[in-house]
Amino acid sequence: MTPSPAPSRDQLETFANQFPSRDYTIEIVCPEFTSVCPKTGQPDFGTLTFRYVPDRLCVELKSLKLYLQAFRNAGIFYENVTNRILDDLVAVVQPRRMTLVAQFTPRGGISSRIAVSHPTNDHLPPTP
Amino acid sequence: MTPSPAPSRDQLETFANQFPSRDYTIEIVCPEFTSVCPKTGQPDFGTLTFRYVPDRLCVELKSLKLYLQAFRNAGIFYENVTNRILDDLVAVVQPRRMTLVAQFTPRGGISSRIAVSHPTNDHLPPTP
Amino acid sequence: MTPSPAPSRDQLETFANQFPSRDYTIEIVCPEFTSVCPKTGQPDFGTLTFRYVPDRLCVELKSLKLYLQAFRNAGIFYENVTNRILDDLVAVVQPRRMTLVAQFTPRGGISSRIAVSHPTNDHLPPTP
Amino acid sequence: MTPSPAPSRDQLETFANQFPSRDYTIEIVCPEFTSVCPKTGQPDFGTLTFRYVPDRLCVELKSLKLYLQAFRNAGIFYENVTNRILDDLVAVVQPRRMTLVAQFTPRGGISSRIAVSHPTNDHLPPTP
Amino acid sequence: MTPSPAPSRDQLETFANQFPSRDYTIEIVCPEFTSVCPKTGQPDFGTLTFRYVPDRLCVELKSLKLYLQAFRNAGIFYENVTNRILDDLVAVVQPRRMTLVAQFTPRGGISSRIAVSHPTNDHLPPTP
Amino acid sequence: MTPSPAPSRDQLETFANQFPSRDYTIEIVCPEFTSVCPKTGQPDFGTLTFRYVPDRLCVELKSLKLYLQAFRNAGIFYENVTNRILDDLVAVVQPRRMTLVAQFTPRGGISSRIAVSHPTNDHLPPTP
Amino acid sequence: MTPSPAPSRDQLETFANQFPSRDYTIEIVCPEFTSVCPKTGQPDFGTLTFRYVPDRLCVELKSLKLYLQAFRNAGIFYENVTNRILDDLVAVVQPRRMTLVAQFTPRGGISSRIAVSHPTNDHLPPTP
Amino acid sequence: MTPSPAPSRDQLETFANQFPSRDYTIEIVCPEFTSVCPKTGQPDFGTLTFRYVPDRLCVELKSLKLYLQAFRNAGIFYENVTNRILDDLVAVVQPRRMTLVAQFTPRGGISSRIAVSHPTNDHLPPTP
Amino acid sequence: MTPSPAPSRDQLETFANQFPSRDYTIEIVCPEFTSVCPKTGQPDFGTLTFRYVPDRLCVELKSLKLYLQAFRNAGIFYENVTNRILDDLVAVVQPRRMTLVAQFTPRGGISSRIAVSHPTNDHLPPTP
Amino acid sequence: MTPSPAPSRDQLETFANQFPSRDYTIEIVCPEFTSVCPKTGQPDFGTLTFRYVPDRLCVELKSLKLYLQAFRNAGIFYENVTNRILDDLVAVVQPRRMTLVAQFTPRGGISSRIAVSHPTNDHLPPTP
Repeated sequence: MTPSPAPSRDQLETFANQFPSRDYTIEIVCPEFTSVCPKTGQPDFGTLTFRYVPDRLCVELKSLKLYLQAFRNAGIFYENVTNRILDDLVAVVQPRRMTLVAQFTPRGGISSRIAVSHPTNDHLPPTP
Repeated sequence: MTPSPAPSRDQLETFANQFPSRDYTIEIVCPEFTSVCPKTGQPDFGTLTFRYVPDRLCVELKSLKLYLQAFRNAGIFYENVTNRILDDLVAVVQPRRMTLVAQFTPRGGISSRIAVSHPTNDHLPPTP
Repeated sequence: MTPSPAPSRDQLETFANQFPSRDYTIEIVCPEFTSVCPKTGQPDFGTLTFRYVPDRLCVELKSLKLYLQAFRNAGIFYENVTNRILDDLVAVVQPRRMTLVAQFTPRGGISSRIAVSHPTNDHLPPTP
Repeated sequence: MTPSPAPSRDQLETFANQFPSRDYTIEIVCPEFTSVCPKTGQPDFGTLTFRYVPDRLCVELKSLKLYLQAFRNAGIFYENVTNRILDDLVAVVQPRRMTLVAQFTPRGGISSRIAVSHPTNDHLPPTP
Repeated sequence: MTPSPAPSRDQLETFANQFPSRDYTIEIVCPEFTSVCPKTGQPDFGTLTFRYVPDRLCVELKSLKLYLQAFRNAGIFYENVTNRILDDLVAVVQPRRMTLVAQFTPRGGISSRIAVSHPTNDHLPPTP
Repeated sequence: MTPSPAPSRDQLETFANQFPSRDYTIEIVCPEFTSVCPKTGQPDFGTLTFRYVPDRLCVELKSLKLYLQAFRNAGIFYENVTNRILDDLVAVVQPRRMTLVAQFTPRGGISSRIAVSHPTNDHLPPTP
Repeated sequence: MTPSPAPSRDQLETFANQFPSRDYTIEIVCPEFTSVCPKTGQPDFGTLTFRYVPDRLCVELKSLKLYLQAFRNAGIFYENVTNRILDDLVAVVQPRRMTLVAQFTPRGGISSRIAVSHPTNDHLPPTP
Repeated sequence: MTPSPAPSRDQLETFANQFPSRDYTIEIVCPEFTSVCPKTGQPDFGTLTFRYVPDRLCVELKSLKLYLQAFRNAGIFYENVTNRILDDLVAVVQPRRMTLVAQFTPRGGISSRIAVSHPTNDHLPPTP
Repeated sequence: MTPSPAPSRDQLETFANQFPSRDYTIEIVCPEFTSVCPKTGQPDFGTLTFRYVPDRLCVELKSLKLYLQAFRNAGIFYENVTNRILDDLVAVVQPRRMTLVAQFTPRGGISSRIAVSHPTNDHLPPTP
Repeated sequence: MTPSPAPSRDQLETFANQFPSRDYTIEIVCPEFTSVCPKTGQPDFGTLTFRYVPDRLCVELKSLKLYLQAFRNAGIFYENVTNRILDDLVAVVQPRRMTLVAQFTPRGGISSRIAVSHPTNDHLPPTP
C-alpha cells in the first residue's frame, strides 16, 4: 500500500443538503478505526459513532472513510484524535450540532471511551 | 422484469381514515429497501421504519410497496432518499405527524442511519 | 518481579488537554485492579470505572496503569482505596468533574461497590 | 459448629470514615442470608442489598458477615428481620442515609421482597 | 429453632414404588443446601441435583428436605458431604442407579462442583 | 365448582388414526397440571409433556384436558401420578411408543422431574 | 370473503426440477396456517415446516400458499390435517423424501406438535 | 444505474490457489442477494452461504459480488437460481467440494431455504 | 502484605479421600489467578479450571488458594505456569486423572487459553 | 510510526517447551488483525484463532503480535495471508498439530472465513 497521506480535513468532501429547512439527524458508525499510540508505537483500534444535524452540507461517506483511513499510521492520543476529528468535521460540514463517541479496545487491561460535542455540552441523543 | 418506472409520489394511494377524531399511531417497517449509490453504482440496502398519526388519510400498503420498489434502480444518496420519501408521504397522506428512520447496511465498514420528522423535530416515540 | 513501590500520586503523568475550551467526557475502565485486605492479608479484586471532564490536563493511560498496579501489594480497605484514588487523580489532573465507581468481587459471599465523585454529589452520567 | 450466639448489634464493628467531608455511596450485596421461619421452623433464604452514605463510620465487612450469620438459627419473620437489621446498622454506623432491600426465595409458591430506609422514605438510588 | 439433630439416614423415609416393573427416572433439585466448613466454621451453600431410577422404593420428598436441613450446622468437607448423602440415599432407597451433583458457591474466589454416582461411573443422563 | 369426579381412564376419548400405516410422532404439552400433595394437602403444580407414536388410535385433546383436570383435588405423589397417567393413556390409546415427562414447581425449595416411557427405556426423541 | 373451495390436491402446481441429477433439499416454513377444530368449531393456528428432496418436480410456492389457505374453514383434527397435507404433497410432487412438522398453538392450555415423513421414519435432517 | 448485464459465469474471476497441496475450507456469506420472482415480478431477497475446498483456483470476491448483483433484475425461481449459481461456480472454480445454502425472506407468509452440494450429497461441515 | 513465599508444592495440603472405592469427579474454578509476565514485568490475569478424579487424596481448598496466591509476584510464561501447576497437583494429590484449563485475559489485543491433562490426552469431560 | 518491515517469519520468536513429553493445546485469539486488499488498496480487518499442540517450541506472544502487525500495510488476499501465516508458524514452531481460522469483516456486503490446518485435514478440536 502506498503510504497514506497525513490525515487532513481537505480529504473530507461534502454534498449540498437538499433539505436545509428541516432539522434531521444522521448517525454514522465506523467500527474499523485504527491509529497508532504515540508513546508505544503500537496500533490502537476503536469504533467511532457520529451523530449530527446537517445545516447546508452533508459529509460524503466515501471521503469520510478515506479521511479516517489516513489516521492508520498516525501517532496520536485517544483524546486528541477524537477532538481533532470532531473539529475537522465541524469545520468542513458546519453542522447545526454534532456528537462523536470513540470507544477504544483494551490496552494493558484498560479501555477508554471519549465523547465530544459541538456546540460543547450539546450531546445529541441516539438516533431513534 | 420490465424496468421500474422512476419513483413518483403519484404511485402512492390512500384511503379515508374513518376515525379522524382520534389521534393514533401507525408503524410500518420495510426491511427490504434497496436503491443504488450514485457515486459507485453499487446497490444499497436498508430498513425503513415509518411512524405516523393520520389525519384524513391513511397510506395504502400495496401502493407503498410498489412506490418503494421503484427506487430499486434509482441512484440516490441516503440522506436524499430518506428526506424525499418522507416528503412524498407527507404530501400525499398529509399526516398530523410522521417520522421516518432509515438504517442502511455497512459499506466500506461504515453504516448509516438517518432520521427525519414532519413537522421538523417532532420525533414520534416508538410504538409501544 | 521487583517489589512495586508504594502507590503514589507522583506516578501519575499528564499531558496537556489541547481542547480546554470544550467540555467533554473521558471514561476509563480498569477490570484488573487488585489490592490486599488489611484485615485478612488476602488479595482483593475489582473493576474501577472513571468518568471525568478534563480541564487543562488529561491523565496519561500507561502511568495510570502503573499507578494502579502499585496497589497490588498494598493493604487497604475498599472505601479508602476508592476515595484515595479519586483524591490522587483530582489532585494531579484537576478535572472539572470526576466520578469513580469501584466494584469488588465477593468475599465470604459478600460483594461491594463504592461510588465517589468530585465535586461531591456531582455524579457524571455514563458516557453516551 | 459451636451454636451461633443470638444476633446482636454488638457484633457489628466499624472503622473511621477517612473521607467524611465527601458524600459517597457504598453498596453491599449478601446473597447468602438465611434465618428460620418462626411459624414452621423451616429455614428461609434471601439476598440482602445495603446502600448507604457514611458519616463518621463505615461498617467493617467481616463483622457484618458474622452478624448476619448469627441469624442462621434465629426464628424471625421476613418483615421483622429486615427492619431489625436496618435498625442495628443505623444504630452502630449512624449513616447519613441507608436503604436495605431483602429478597427471599419462594415458600409455598410465594416469594417476598422487603425494602426499608433511614431516614424513612429516603430511598437511595442505585449506585451508578 | 430447636437445634437440628445430627443428620442421619434414619431421617429418610420412603414409599413403595408402585411401578417397579418400569425403569424410569426421577430428578430432584435442591438449591438451598447449607452446611458448615469444618476448617473455618463458616457456612457453605450449594445446589444438589439428584437423578435416580427407583427399584422398590422412592424417597419421600419432605423427609429428604428435613434430612438435608440436618446438615445446616454440621461441619463437613464438600467431597465428604456429597459422597455421604449419596451413600445414605443408596442405603435407604436402594435405587437401580443414582447420580448426585453438588455445586457450591465461591469461597475465597474459588468455587467447586462434585459429581458422584452409584454404581460408580454409571452417570445417569439428564432427565429428558 | 362442582367437585370433580375421581380421575378415571374412562374419561379419555380417542378417535381412529386414519394413517396407521405410517409411524409418526405426536407431542402434547400441558403446562397447567395441578394435583394435591397427599402428605401436606397443599396444591402441586407441574408441566406434563407427552410424546407418542399412535397405532390405531389417537387421544382426543379435549377429553385429555378434562381427564387431567380431574386430578385437581386428588391427593397423589408425583411419582404415582406420572406413572398412572402414562398407564391410563397406554391402556386407552395403545400407542406403539409413549413418553411422559412431568416437571413440578418447587416445594420447600425442592423441585422434581419424573420421566416414564412405554415400553420401558424406549424414550422417544424430541419431535423434530 | 367468498367461501374457500374445499382444499384439494388439484390446487397444488409444480414446475420441472431442472437439476434432477442432484439430490438437494428444500425447506419451506409456513407460520400462518389456520383451520377449524371439528369438535368445538374454534379456529386453530399452527406453523408448518416442510423439508424435501425433489425428484422430477418442485412445488410452486404460490399454489402451495393457496392450497394451505383452503383449509381456513375446514374442520379437521391436527393429526389428520398433518397427514393429509403430507399425502397430498407426496402424491403431486412425488419427492424422493419429505418431512412435515406441524406445531399448533395452545388450546385449553394444551399445545401439540405432529411430525410425519415419507417414506415413513425417513426424517430429513435440518437443512444445513 | 446502467441496466445490469444478464448474469453470466464469464463474470466470475479466479486467482491461482497458491497452496494446492493443502485441503482447506473457504466460507463466504452474502446477505444481500436479490433477484425477481418470474411469476409475480416482485423482488426476492436472500442470504447465500458458500463453503468450498479449492483445488487450483479461488474465486475472486469482487467478481463474485458483481456476478451476484447481475441477478438483481433477473426473473428466476429460488430452486433454479440456487442450483445455477452452484453450477457456475463449480464450472469456473472447479473446487474439490462446494456447498451452497440459500435462505430467502418470507413471501405471502412463506419462507424457503435451498441447500445444494457438489458432488451431490457431499455437504461440507461448517468452517470451524 | 508480607511478600509471598515463592510458590511451592509444599504449600498444597491434602485430606484423605474417604470414598476411594468410587470414581468421582471434582471441579474447581479459580477466576482470580494472577502472576507476572517474565518478559514485560506486567501482571497477568486468568481463570483456572481443574477437573480431577481423586485416588487416595483430595486437595484442601484453602491450601490450594494460598498456593495459587503465591504466584502473585512470580514471573512465569502462561504455558509454563499451567503445566507446572498441573505437575504440582499431580505430584501431591496423585489423582487418577486431572485436567487443567487456563484462560488468560488479553494482552496487546491477544488472549490465550492453555489446556493440559494427566495422563496426557486423557481429557476429563465436564462435570455433569 | 516508522514503516513496518515486511512481514517475515524471522520476526517470530520461540521459547523451549519445558513439557515436551506431554501433548497439550494452546489457543491464541487475535481480534485485531489488519492487512490491505491487493486489488482495492483498502484495509481489511479480521480475527485470527490459532490452536496448536507444541513439540519442542512454543511461540512467544509478543513476537507473534509484532509479526502480525507487520501485515498492517501489506497487500495480500485473505486465502494467501491465512495460509502464509500458518506456514510461517509451522516452519518456526514446528508444532505437532496446528489449526488457524481467519474470520474477516464484510466488504461490499460479503464476509469470509478461511480455515487451514497442519497436517492437512487434521483440525484440532476447540480447547476445552
